[in-house]
Amino acid sequence: MARPPEYNRPEVLQAALHVFWRDGYESSTIQKLLDAMGLNRGSFYGAFVDKESLFREVMDCYVHYQSNIISFNLMGIEEPLEAIRGFLEDFALHEGAEIRERGCLLFNTVTELSHTRPHLAEDASKRVGFLHKLFIKRLEQAYKLGDVRADKNVDDMADYLVALASGLRTHCKMKTNPAVIREIIDLGLDVVTTPNNNQGASIF
Amino acid sequence: MARPPEYNRPEVLQAALHVFWRDGYESSTIQKLLDAMGLNRGSFYGAFVDKESLFREVMDCYVHYQSNIISFNLMGIEEPLEAIRGFLEDFALHEGAEIRERGCLLFNTVTELSHTRPHLAEDASKRVGFLHKLFIKRLEQAYKLGDVRADKNVDDMADYLVALASGLRTHCKMKTNPAVIREIIDLGLDVVTTPNNNQGASIF
Repeated sequence: MARPPEYNRPEVLQAALHVFWRDGYESSTIQKLLDAMGLNRGSFYGAFVDKESLFREVMDCYVHYQSNIISFNLMGIEEPLEAIRGFLEDFALHEGAEIRERGCLLFNTVTELSHTRPHLAEDASKRVGFLHKLFIKRLEQAYKLGDVRADKNVDDMADYLVALASGLRTHCKMKTNPAVIREIIDLGLDVVTTPNNNQGASIF
Repeated sequence: MARPPEYNRPEVLQAALHVFWRDGYESSTIQKLLDAMGLNRGSFYGAFVDKESLFREVMDCYVHYQSNIISFNLMGIEEPLEAIRGFLEDFALHEGAEIRERGCLLFNTVTELSHTRPHLAEDASKRVGFLHKLFIKRLEQAYKLGDVRADKNVDDMADYLVALASGLRTHCKMKTNPAVIREIIDLGLDVVTTPNNNQGASIF
């Protein structure tokens, strides 16, 4: 017998995403999730098995949600360093304060669960690895154009950009003024550029 | 009547600190805290009122705990940029993996509680403000020595260093190899130095 069509899976997943993203894993109680998703316990456990399984599916939704930003910037802009800048700006300068101050679900998860639920934190880290790979790809293109410094390897620069992205999201959660966040992006990106781009005349 | 000396306050606070620091706020249940602190419920509530009040006191302990690193590096080393480097290295390269992978209690708290317990997240942010002020002080000294770039203001550079510190701690939680973390510090600090220090011949 087919599953009764009592809910729309993408819609209820999106509702759960907003709870987890805003409140974190532990504060997202089953009751809070049921209220947001509009499900009863039976449907919830029937459809999603348990909170951890739901959360994994929610992380996939989040990556899909962020993929618009990623495909528009990190993959859609031709000039590689402009693409990285565009990504960081969209990532940390979302115009809605409520969304901006949620931070990043993946970094939030790594931070909250690294010790208590290491398997979920590791899942989140792996998804950050996808971003790392895209940074490498664009940095390699920039390297061929002579736009990034040649004395450091691209892999380390990508790790640095992950650190910068994470730090920017912490600032979002600390409600740092967006103008300051923009300055941090300016400063932070100078690190990867070639020296002659480093004092205001940069490609950014 | 004086409080019966049934526990040593600094000791039980330190025990609570290690629970919160490792597991985060929400996962640190009262029972877990009681077990670690060796207290019964009556003594616990008599001495600390509630979990939030305990947590505030624990954040003070943490800042005190970190003050050794801060006073040794950020305030104790004469050359200001070396002091900042020394601080970041101690902050993100603790030799014990267990401590290193806990991240920073303050950034963890901002990340976990910004929406669900904003007053505690704000308390943590204020304590990060103390670090920000120390960065400014050392950057101003470095500026007078001509060691930091003159085209950006010291306040923004301090905000950038807070982002870098936070991003380094996220990498710790992601179990990034310490050698990579060292590279991120190298790269990350280049951003504040004067251009002639920027390609390997830097003061760091």
